[in-house]
Amino acid sequence: MEQARKRVLSGMRPTGKLHLGNLHGALDNWLSLQDEYECFFFIADWHALTTDYASPEMIRRNTWDVVLDWLSAGIDPEKSTLFIQSEVKEHAELHVLLSMITPIPWLERNPTYKEQQQQLSHKDLSTYGFLGYPVLQTADIIIYRAHGVPVGKDQLPHIELAREIVRRFHFLYRCNIFPEPQALLTEYPVIPGTDGRKMSKSYNNCIYLAEDAESVRRKVMTMITDPQRKRRTDPGDPEVCPVFDLHRIYSGEDERSEIIQGCRTASIGCVDCKKILLKNLERKHEPIRERRRKFEGKMPEVYEIMEEGIKKAREEASRTMELVRDAMGMNPFMEAEAHIRAGAR
Amino acid sequence: MEQARKRVLSGMRPTGKLHLGNLHGALDNWLSLQDEYECFFFIADWHALTTDYASPEMIRRNTWDVVLDWLSAGIDPEKSTLFIQSEVKEHAELHVLLSMITPIPWLERNPTYKEQQQQLSHKDLSTYGFLGYPVLQTADIIIYRAHGVPVGKDQLPHIELAREIVRRFHFLYRCNIFPEPQALLTEYPVIPGTDGRKMSKSYNNCIYLAEDAESVRRKVMTMITDPQRKRRTDPGDPEVCPVFDLHRIYSGEDERSEIIQGCRTASIGCVDCKKILLKNLERKHEPIRERRRKFEGKMPEVYEIMEEGIKKAREEASRTMELVRDAMGMNPFMEAEAHIRAGAR
Ligand code: SF4
Ligand code: SF4
Repeated sequence: MEQARKRVLSGMRPTGKLHLGNLHGALDNWLSLQDEYECFFFIADWHALTTDYASPEMIRRNTWDVVLDWLSAGIDPEKSTLFIQSEVKEHAELHVLLSMITPIPWLERNPTYKEQQQQLSHKDLSTYGFLGYPVLQTADIIIYRAHGVPVGKDQLPHIELAREIVRRFHFLYRCNIFPEPQALLTEYPVIPGTDGRKMSKSYNNCIYLAEDAESVRRKVMTMITDPQRKRRTDPGDPEVCPVFDLHRIYSGEDERSEIIQGCRTASIGCVDCKKILLKNLERKHEPIRERRRKFEGKMPEVYEIMEEGIKKAREEASRTMELVRDAMGMNPFMEAEAHIRAGAR
Repeated sequence: MEQARKRVLSGMRPTGKLHLGNLHGALDNWLSLQDEYECFFFIADWHALTTDYASPEMIRRNTWDVVLDWLSAGIDPEKSTLFIQSEVKEHAELHVLLSMITPIPWLERNPTYKEQQQQLSHKDLSTYGFLGYPVLQTADIIIYRAHGVPVGKDQLPHIELAREIVRRFHFLYRCNIFPEPQALLTEYPVIPGTDGRKMSKSYNNCIYLAEDAESVRRKVMTMITDPQRKRRTDPGDPEVCPVFDLHRIYSGEDERSEIIQGCRTASIGCVDCKKILLKNLERKHEPIRERRRKFEGKMPEVYEIMEEGIKKAREEASRTMELVRDAMGMNPFMEAEAHIRAGAR
């Protein structure tokens, strides 16, 4: 096989600047994947259209914010192929072909289909594209003949669907082009936002990767703590304090023990506790911010990075599409060449 | 406007060699369209997949037979752009984009959807692609910003859907890129097959464009006539005779009057009547056969014709896609250029 390392594919919808939840969720995982696998990471802008078709302007603007966040977090274009979905038209071609062999009931039984329609009931999601996004997702994955896809538990049905489509394709066209993609199941820590709920753009409680130190400081210093600890002299309980949840990520074990002890005995105040957190958070955050400043200062280079990645992705995708067209026989000029050869005999 | 003449688009699924029914249906109509309009005629091989996804090999083989039939019938690549759908990937890209804004109920109410599922109940047509083929068809039409589409009455709902999608696109993205395509309603004569039923591949009663004179002669000479005229001496009724239906197409008024008279009085036999038909049919058929022989003898030129057409179609389709991406803002490097310009100020 030409592929030395196993291949992993993962995408992100460009819905806005990334926050610490995304960093410790997807991005940290990508950082470790890029050393072990041949990674393809992409901006899923067509996917963003499935829910945000009414405001695509936003999608485009967010694209470059997300790219900058990736690079700032340490995603390395020397190691991984970074690209933008809508720039690799082959995804659309494979999507059309796969749509012909995908039974609608396979899509309707997708649990996230009804779920999301209910959750986003303020948007009209009864569209053809929304029903079919797992088919597009399958095309995204298999067009790079990826072996693995890092996913959370909620996305397992999509990977299973991709595997079913692959099997049906191989069966119908008597071939074996695609690895059946495996879910690389990842448990992401839940990162609390400033209000104690899960960090999420829709709660407006995020600390962003691109945020400056002063703004981060303000957010941390006004962050909700153990609600029972009303006065400095009240003892607190780190187990119910979102600030302590962040300590679990940013602070070492020794410091954490001291905080537990100090909080429970009211020997440390929340202000001091937060200052310790800030110091540790900044140790991780400052280099990211630093890299972002650097990349922001040389955007043409960032565009070039993406153009390079897009080129690489296209090459790989067209190689796969050749195999696909040959397997299906959807290759009119293959016939043409055979004619010419036959005529020349 | 850059477009001098109004533009027409029409496609044909490559389901096999064309017969006289296709000639006097679609092809004769195309011949007259190509003088009046700027025509784009295409082999709808992706559409053929919606029903024949299990046997795409056949689609590919049929493609070149249909192309040869077009050229033999006089479709002129100097006047019209001939191309193969699957070779112009932009159709797939636009299809993805349109799928995001097309409500499923619009597709489910398509009358031919349920109808065809019932008619072709031996095939599993509950696929995602089959439900969505009017979306793909809309992409086919509007990617060339066509003004008109020649259709039979049964296809009017598809054109209406295309117009609705165009209006929704213009409304959502505040633009006005596409003409709302008009149906060029055409009434095709029903051509009887050798058994008297409508000429159709599925009845195995066809006379093909590519058929040699001897074979055509045999088919005409054994063709069903007025079933009441059992003996040479019985009078017949041209009104119920499929041979006479062909006379209506191939023979002049004088000859037809003589035949009506002769048949009703049994002064002419069916054999003679068919010989007259053959003579007239051959006058139309022989030049077609002649051209086909010529083109079959120089297939590389035929491939080149199609490659030229595909190139022209691609150019036009990418021009439209640029407008589409700009209108939607689905153009990440547009943002990139704006960044660079802003930085240079
Ligand atoms: S001291 Fe720290 S852990 Fe305890 S309640 Fe205050 S912020 Fe939370
Ligand atoms: S004479 Fe001609 S029109 Fe009359 S029945 Fe025979 S074939 Fe038909």
